[in-house]
Amino acid sequence: MRNAIFILTLGLIFATAGQAFAAEEPQNVIKYRQAVMKAIGGHTGAIAGVVKGEVSFTGDVAAHARGIQEMSKLVSKLFPKGTDNKMQEKTRALPAIWEDRAKFDAAVKAFQAASANLVRVAEAGDPAAFGGGLQELGKACGGCHKPFRAEEK
Amino acid sequence: MRNAIFILTLGLIFATAGQAFAAEEPQNVIKYRQAVMKAIGGHTGAIAGVVKGEVSFTGDVAAHARGIQEMSKLVSKLFPKGTDNKMQEKTRALPAIWEDRAKFDAAVKAFQAASANLVRVAEAGDPAAFGGGLQELGKACGGCHKPFRAEEK
Repeated sequence: MRNAIFILTLGLIFATAGQAFAAEEPQNVIKYRQAVMKAIGGHTGAIAGVVKGEVSFTGDVAAHARGIQEMSKLVSKLFPKGTDNKMQEKTRALPAIWEDRAKFDAAVKAFQAASANLVRVAEAGDPAAFGGGLQELGKACGGCHKPFRAEEK
Repeated sequence: MRNAIFILTLGLIFATAGQAFAAEEPQNVIKYRQAVMKAIGGHTGAIAGVVKGEVSFTGDVAAHARGIQEMSKLVSKLFPKGTDNKMQEKTRALPAIWEDRAKFDAAVKAFQAASANLVRVAEAGDPAAFGGGLQELGKACGGCHKPFRAEEK
């Protein structure tokens, strides 16, 4: 019994240590967040090149769409409290995210839905439908960037 | 018989038209190529943040690795002749790519192998192995960027 309590206590200590580790420095979360956004931006820009007819790589669109969709699942956790542009430098994330988290969460869900739709459209393989899928994605990007991101200085 | 020849001729005309369409403007290929590289850079930077312990999102690494691997399959065709930094602005791609295409192709294959390995390592889910996988990927990036990319101005 004593051993069991000892082990439980040890477990709690490690659990607490784990949580402490999980609460990373805000500037590191911001740096990671921007790397994720860079990946999303790269994939989206590439799809735009195909949709505009600048390049003929229609077969690449599904790969880019999958990349965006995988990233869309990570976004929500990348906005912990304390990572806004009033508390931190090098970010355009507005405090509005945490003042109206429900609206923010809904916008993230819309992004996830739009990227899942783009994967479906891209994997179906009809290039004529790619533009519509990209447009929907663009709207979803704006759904966060317009209300929740500061203008570029 | 005459009909068959007519249809064959038509087919040839369309095949040629298709090729003409596929030969896009060099500056558009470069723009697309840079979007692909941006996506790779975003994913790689994100993994680096995890490996350095700046963030604890070990569960994200597989998604980033898959993104890089998908992109690695596209890279080879993104370097058609005429897209080097002597013939085009806004690119650091050296003519050496086309002067020693075999070496370039081998470097692309090494990148594909390293990113496939990183997917395996990430999906196996042991964070202690992520650093080794990322290091191998970094070497593969350098395998193209050192001999085949001009210094940043």
